[in-house]
Amino acid sequence: MITPRTLKGFRDFLPDLMLPRERLIETATDVYRSYGFCPIDTPALEYLEILLGKGSDETDKQLYQFTDHGGRQVGLRFDLTVPLARYTAQHFAELTFPFKRYHFGKVWRGENTQAGRYREFMQCDFDTIGTGAGFSGAIASDIEITLVINDLFERLGFTRFKIRINNRKVLSGLLDKLGIADKTAPILRALDKIGKIGKAAVMKEMIDAAAVTAIQAEAVLTLTDLAGSPATQLPALQSLLSGNSLGEEGVAQLDELFRATDAAGLPKDRLVLDVSIARGLDYYTGMIYETFLDDLPSIGSVCSGGRYDNLAGLYTKQELPGVGASLGLDRLISAMEELGMIEKISTPVQVFLPFFSANRLADYLRLASELRRSGIGVEFYPEAKKLGQQLKYADKRGFRWAVIIGEDEWTKGCCQIKDLRTGESVECSIAGCAERLRFADNADSTVSTSSAVPTSTVPT
Amino acid sequence: MITPRTLKGFRDFLPDLMLPRERLIETATDVYRSYGFCPIDTPALEYLEILLGKGSDETDKQLYQFTDHGGRQVGLRFDLTVPLARYTAQHFAELTFPFKRYHFGKVWRGENTQAGRYREFMQCDFDTIGTGAGFSGAIASDIEITLVINDLFERLGFTRFKIRINNRKVLSGLLDKLGIADKTAPILRALDKIGKIGKAAVMKEMIDAAAVTAIQAEAVLTLTDLAGSPATQLPALQSLLSGNSLGEEGVAQLDELFRATDAAGLPKDRLVLDVSIARGLDYYTGMIYETFLDDLPSIGSVCSGGRYDNLAGLYTKQELPGVGASLGLDRLISAMEELGMIEKISTPVQVFLPFFSANRLADYLRLASELRRSGIGVEFYPEAKKLGQQLKYADKRGFRWAVIIGEDEWTKGCCQIKDLRTGESVECSIAGCAERLRFADNADSTVSTSSAVPTSTVPT
Repeated sequence: MITPRTLKGFRDFLPDLMLPRERLIETATDVYRSYGFCPIDTPALEYLEILLGKGSDETDKQLYQFTDHGGRQVGLRFDLTVPLARYTAQHFAELTFPFKRYHFGKVWRGENTQAGRYREFMQCDFDTIGTGAGFSGAIASDIEITLVINDLFERLGFTRFKIRINNRKVLSGLLDKLGIADKTAPILRALDKIGKIGKAAVMKEMIDAAAVTAIQAEAVLTLTDLAGSPATQLPALQSLLSGNSLGEEGVAQLDELFRATDAAGLPKDRLVLDVSIARGLDYYTGMIYETFLDDLPSIGSVCSGGRYDNLAGLYTKQELPGVGASLGLDRLISAMEELGMIEKISTPVQVFLPFFSANRLADYLRLASELRRSGIGVEFYPEAKKLGQQLKYADKRGFRWAVIIGEDEWTKGCCQIKDLRTGESVECSIAGCAERLRFADNADSTVSTSSAVPTSTVPT
Repeated sequence: MITPRTLKGFRDFLPDLMLPRERLIETATDVYRSYGFCPIDTPALEYLEILLGKGSDETDKQLYQFTDHGGRQVGLRFDLTVPLARYTAQHFAELTFPFKRYHFGKVWRGENTQAGRYREFMQCDFDTIGTGAGFSGAIASDIEITLVINDLFERLGFTRFKIRINNRKVLSGLLDKLGIADKTAPILRALDKIGKIGKAAVMKEMIDAAAVTAIQAEAVLTLTDLAGSPATQLPALQSLLSGNSLGEEGVAQLDELFRATDAAGLPKDRLVLDVSIARGLDYYTGMIYETFLDDLPSIGSVCSGGRYDNLAGLYTKQELPGVGASLGLDRLISAMEELGMIEKISTPVQVFLPFFSANRLADYLRLASELRRSGIGVEFYPEAKKLGQQLKYADKRGFRWAVIIGEDEWTKGCCQIKDLRTGESVECSIAGCAERLRFADNADSTVSTSSAVPTSTVPT
């Protein structure tokens, strides 16, 4: 006998967690689509050469790679960005630009497992490709990404979260102004440690490892003080970078983003300027986004991204600038569980139909079919066991109503609709029970929160 | 530079095919849920020992397998049934039985690629575990599977399809009655070839390879003539198997299934008795289902399954009988494309908002946000290019309406709603345009067919 088990870092989803996960995916899909983002899909397996050297030494090391039946070197994708780059280059002629896509997909990384880290996890990316190239591009797409992130979290039920914004040009401009642009990489490495080792140590590292002067290092560190309300910090940033066109461009873009999102109705305290965000700065070229939950900041950013000027440079000479972000679905679900935002339910339907009178199978099945045709989902118990046993099952599963029909009721054409929360029953005709259930459901607003189907929006 | 390409047998999905694919998944989800099936998920990678020897020699050979970073022998799942068996055994104590689950997931098989065959494809399985064990079990779950298949295809827009039904006990009973039950395997191998080599050759093979007599072989072949309307064929089957309890049980179950589905409102010609279906008969123990499209039978069965008496016998001593079927999503999409049932659209929203007046970015974004909040999805063009260029893009993408607002309109507070099919425009106030778009959409019934959101059913 083989022990049933999953690999370390991989996990099964039971229905009570999978139902909220599907609802989360539905909500995200709904939001992405409402902006005109389209779904795409790409294979889990790619040629190894497509994947290698695209992330970092770490992603290379974590890559699940092997030789396939045809002797090809292949690997499991570790993110959805590298496949997007390959996809956009490959299908360039078939796509319409600006190309707005979303992509839900699993990715694999053989990393050390720890709390909240998995070797298989789902990403939900959305990006706009083909707008705002170079330094003079319009930033409507960049602003829109902020609106999408805000809608997404509001629709998921969050009110207390912050979107932290930075622009890579600000740091580049400052380094440029200080004449140390060629030392960006070691400076970034030092800056990234500020939370851990503190300002003084970062300054020392910049002087030692990046070989900058104390005055230069101090000037760089000034940036990290400029975080908070854009209204007060942007002017300070502006004067710090005055005279450097790249830096001024960055500040102007930040200013435009804050003003436009404000005009579009984003709550004022939702967006935070944070010039210390350094995530993959060697990769990003403009705006950078991170999203933190006020009530659980320790879980880290749950939706991050930014602008990159040349997505597919390794695959095509076509310039393909883009801007987008990625929702960390599994991390977010962990957070929502921890915050008590997930109602664990294990049934997608509200109505339970016990199999009570053994020789009436066809009648029960017909009634269930009729209810479904009238839009009411119903689970029929598949064995004519004792009613008590069936109701115990219904209770465990979390159904809201039971429609109870025994031989007597079949003969009389009536049924008992039992409220499984209160235990109360009402009698009504079998023919009228769909109507009655719909009425009961409307009267009971709590039911709609666990409805399996998203609210219809017309026209989308 | 690296050539952007996908592995042979793997494919990308462009938006115009991915939108219908997502719609298909939504519809199937909706149908599964309306019966109380719950979603689950399992990892793509499993321990090799979980996967090996579970399908056939062929699936073993086609398995994508390798050694992971921790030296573990692992493989990519080749179906969703083996993971279900492992899952049910592993989580037995946490699950509620009868356990009804659905599972959408990609599976991988390194098989020879040919038309309609991929090395990565998506399966959509639904199964009920824990009912109807052994030979005397109730078959309500088995009947329900038929109803699910029927609902699924009707909801997907099919009217011309057949669900072919068999029961493994019929053949077992006959072989038992003929005293050749021990020769089941070679008899099945011969029977499977009947379409290719014809009756005479099958008879010869049975006599040669299975060492049965000519009379026995002829009796077995009688079965294959008994296909078609259950009303006429069931009595014949009944008399053929009379006296053998296993065979009689099989006939009685078929009889009950046909009568109950009829009572539940299934169109009479939808179900066909086909005692020649032999799919994996060494595995199935009761009902067997296959689904064929009348207008494209050559594509093969698009939804197949059956009853198995011991799903997880390799992992647990707990007896776990089950019944279910699997929708071949990618094969079905190919079929729907071929039948012209897929409207290729490349936008999930109907409304396009051009960026016309360059200094009004914030105003456009605010209007777009307001429309979305009122339930109207809208794509805003992210660059203030010439209007003609933007409308050309809108045309390519297939939007239905454009809301055109230039500097003049902003000043006056009005907008032009342009019907992109007819080219006609109506003027209305910016404040009233949400109302107007909703009205236009209701008047235009064709729009709702490409709505991105499934119709809401309350309560599900």
